[in-house]
Amino acid sequence: MPDDRLQALVQRLREFSAAKQWERYHSPKNLAMALAGETGELVAELQWLTEDESRAPEPERLQRIRDEAADVFIYLARLADALGIDLIEAAHAKMDRNEARFPAGSAPGHR
Amino acid sequence: MPDDRLQALVQRLREFSAAKQWERYHSPKNLAMALAGETGELVAELQWLTEDESRAPEPERLQRIRDEAADVFIYLARLADALGIDLIEAAHAKMDRNEARFPAGSAPGHR
Amino acid sequence: MPDDRLQALVQRLREFSAAKQWERYHSPKNLAMALAGETGELVAELQWLTEDESRAPEPERLQRIRDEAADVFIYLARLADALGIDLIEAAHAKMDRNEARFPAGSAPGHR
Amino acid sequence: MPDDRLQALVQRLREFSAAKQWERYHSPKNLAMALAGETGELVAELQWLTEDESRAPEPERLQRIRDEAADVFIYLARLADALGIDLIEAAHAKMDRNEARFPAGSAPGHR
Repeated sequence: MPDDRLQALVQRLREFSAAKQWERYHSPKNLAMALAGETGELVAELQWLTEDESRAPEPERLQRIRDEAADVFIYLARLADALGIDLIEAAHAKMDRNEARFPAGSAPGHR
Repeated sequence: MPDDRLQALVQRLREFSAAKQWERYHSPKNLAMALAGETGELVAELQWLTEDESRAPEPERLQRIRDEAADVFIYLARLADALGIDLIEAAHAKMDRNEARFPAGSAPGHR
Repeated sequence: MPDDRLQALVQRLREFSAAKQWERYHSPKNLAMALAGETGELVAELQWLTEDESRAPEPERLQRIRDEAADVFIYLARLADALGIDLIEAAHAKMDRNEARFPAGSAPGHR
Repeated sequence: MPDDRLQALVQRLREFSAAKQWERYHSPKNLAMALAGETGELVAELQWLTEDESRAPEPERLQRIRDEAADVFIYLARLADALGIDLIEAAHAKMDRNEARFPAGSAPGHR
């Protein structure tokens, strides 16, 4: 029985794909591509905005951003589920390392 | 008080960015770029694998995929938080529409 | 005077953007986002195909792939032009290093 | 015989992949993933810069951007070659349509 909202969503996605018989399409490789496609659509919503504009998009654009973020999340959750990854645990494990890695006041860096 | 695991993670990310004084970097525009960068790293882990290989990666690669999926999730959660989007609600809203849109047995579509 | 086909295209793109007064939008940061958006659309055309299917797409899909590849190329050329990068020279410089880096028969790797 | 610089590069890439016996890895599907991976690395170089900063990166970052743009270009050229697409012709065909589509003074659109 799903013990939280993320687990309940993952379960819904799993049942939806099973009902549609999409498991054969949903290899991690293909799901990573779908994730990249949806990420591209999300980025496209913000590409011509200034940073300030991006902090307060007009309602219509905000709705599109919400929809694209949902698509990104759906494919990320499907990919994680296909490989037995718990996204929340994985994120906390990464944050444990980030907290050791970045001293206060440092600029964000990723290389 | 966080009522679920996702909300608790979002709260941790918020506090981490505040402590590091990264809010000025974390515009939705920049976060979308960081999301695209991490998505690219995740895709790169799977690009030369066959679909079958991607279903059962060796342990070392699986660990890297887990780390990259965590990074994607962290930036997606930050972006959603910056714009007041609840990812789980947004995903369910999208799935409500998907259930109306795809009849059983149809191939997955991407537009 | 353009001495080759790529240079002539770059010149056309430059004149088009100037005529539309888009230079203020075309910062390298924004162009990189546009590149990511178009790359996502290209990936989406191939995401549910098998590798074999992707080697011989049906004519309609091939035409869409051609259009998306054109969009990727246009933004990449604009980005390079904005930063004074000659893409062909940069690619040859990279290939010089790749030839030293990968012995014959090795699997492709990128880390 | 290559009649221009792009064609000569495409020929070099083809020979390099043949010598390394990478054709079996270089399906259009896999090349699109590699393109997405390299695009992600390029975006990552610009993600925390302001738009103004991105117009004049410091020399070390500019060199990394040049290298990443080269990688993007290499995989785009390989993908186009695998599908018989002439990138320059495809870009001009797209620009013919763009010239009909955007009146002078309009904001850039992304769909």
